[in-house]
Amino acid sequence: MKYIEPLAKLIAQLSKLPSVGEKTAARYAYAILNSPEEEVNELIDAIREVKQNVHFCKICGNYTENEVCDICATRKPTTICVVKEPKDIIALEKVKDFKGVYHVLGGVISPMEHIGPNDIRIKELLARLDGVEEVILATNPDVEGEATAMYIARLIKPMGIKVTRIARGLPEGSVIEYADESTLSRALSSRIEL
Amino acid sequence: MKYIEPLAKLIAQLSKLPSVGEKTAARYAYAILNSPEEEVNELIDAIREVKQNVHFCKICGNYTENEVCDICATRKPTTICVVKEPKDIIALEKVKDFKGVYHVLGGVISPMEHIGPNDIRIKELLARLDGVEEVILATNPDVEGEATAMYIARLIKPMGIKVTRIARGLPEGSVIEYADESTLSRALSSRIEL
Repeated sequence: MKYIEPLAKLIAQLSKLPSVGEKTAARYAYAILNSPEEEVNELIDAIREVKQNVHFCKICGNYTENEVCDICATRKPTTICVVKEPKDIIALEKVKDFKGVYHVLGGVISPMEHIGPNDIRIKELLARLDGVEEVILATNPDVEGEATAMYIARLIKPMGIKVTRIARGLPEGSVIEYADESTLSRALSSRIEL
Repeated sequence: MKYIEPLAKLIAQLSKLPSVGEKTAARYAYAILNSPEEEVNELIDAIREVKQNVHFCKICGNYTENEVCDICATRKPTTICVVKEPKDIIALEKVKDFKGVYHVLGGVISPMEHIGPNDIRIKELLARLDGVEEVILATNPDVEGEATAMYIARLIKPMGIKVTRIARGLPEGSVIEYADESTLSRALSSRIEL
C-alpha cells in the first residue's frame, strides 16, 4: 500500500510536469483533492481551452487564439526578431524596447538531436523577407543557438538585408570575479569604445 | 500584452497549487500546451477520477475508493493511531512498524482559526473505542497538535484505555549545535535510561 489508485494515477500524471517529482506531485494532488468542485472544474476547463484554442500564428509562429497574433496584426514588419520559442517573445516583450515583429523557429539546429535546418521554420522566415530592413537573431547564446544564428545569417546577408545578433557579455549586476571564461572572453572581444 | 487569454487563465488556475508562483505556473502551462492531446486527456481524467472516486473511509476518515479503507478492512482495531490528515497515514505507513489502525481527525483544535473540538472528528473517535487497548496520539509536535493531543488524552484516559503520545526529541542525523531550544529542552526532559 501507498497511495490509493486514483491518487497514484494523478500523482503520476502531475509528475510529468517540468521539474515536478513525486513529492511535489503528491502535494498538488492533495491540493486538487481538497479543492472545491467548481475550482477543479475551472482548472480542467482552463487546460481544455488552452489545448483547443491556442494555435500558432500563421505568419510568425507565435501562440495565438486567432489566425494571426496580436503583434503581427498591429506592427510594421520591417524588423523581424528571430527567436527559438514563443516564450522568448514573452521575455522580449517585457523589455518594451522592441517595436518590430517576431519569427518563431520552433527549435534550433541540433545535430545531436537530429534537428536540421529543414526541421525548423527557416523556409518560412525566408518567405517573409520582402520589404524587411533588419533581421535580429535572438536565439539563445549557447552552441546550438549560435550555430542556428550563423546559419540563418549566411542565408540572409547575401540578400542585402541587415542581419544582427543580440549582444553577449557580462549580465547586468554580475561580478567579473565569478564570470565564466567564455562570457569574459566575449565581453572582452566585444568591447565598445566610449 | 503578456500572455494570451487562454494561457493567462491556465496560469492563474495553476498558480492556485501550493507554492506555485506565476513563473512556475507558466512553465507548467507551456508544458501542457506542448504535450500531446492524449497525455493532456490522461491528466484531465486523472483529476476527474480523484474528485469522483476518492471518498473518506467511513470508519477512520482516511481516503479510500471504497466504503471502508484497506487498512480498516484488514487490520485488528485494538490500537488506534490518531492523526491530523490522511497524508500523515502515508508517512506513518512508510515506516512499516505500525500494525494497528488509524483515525483521521481532519484537523486540529485551533482557537486562532476558530476550530473547536466539535469541528474535528473527536466524537467519531470516542465512538469506536470499544475493545481498543491503546490510542497513540500522532498529531504534529506543534502548539495545536499538542493541545489537541492533550484534549483527547483527557477524554480517553478516564475510560481506562492506554493513551500514548509519539516521542519528541532530536531528529535522527541532526546536530545538537543547531537544534532549536524547545527541541533540545524536550530531548533533555524526555531522556531515557540506558
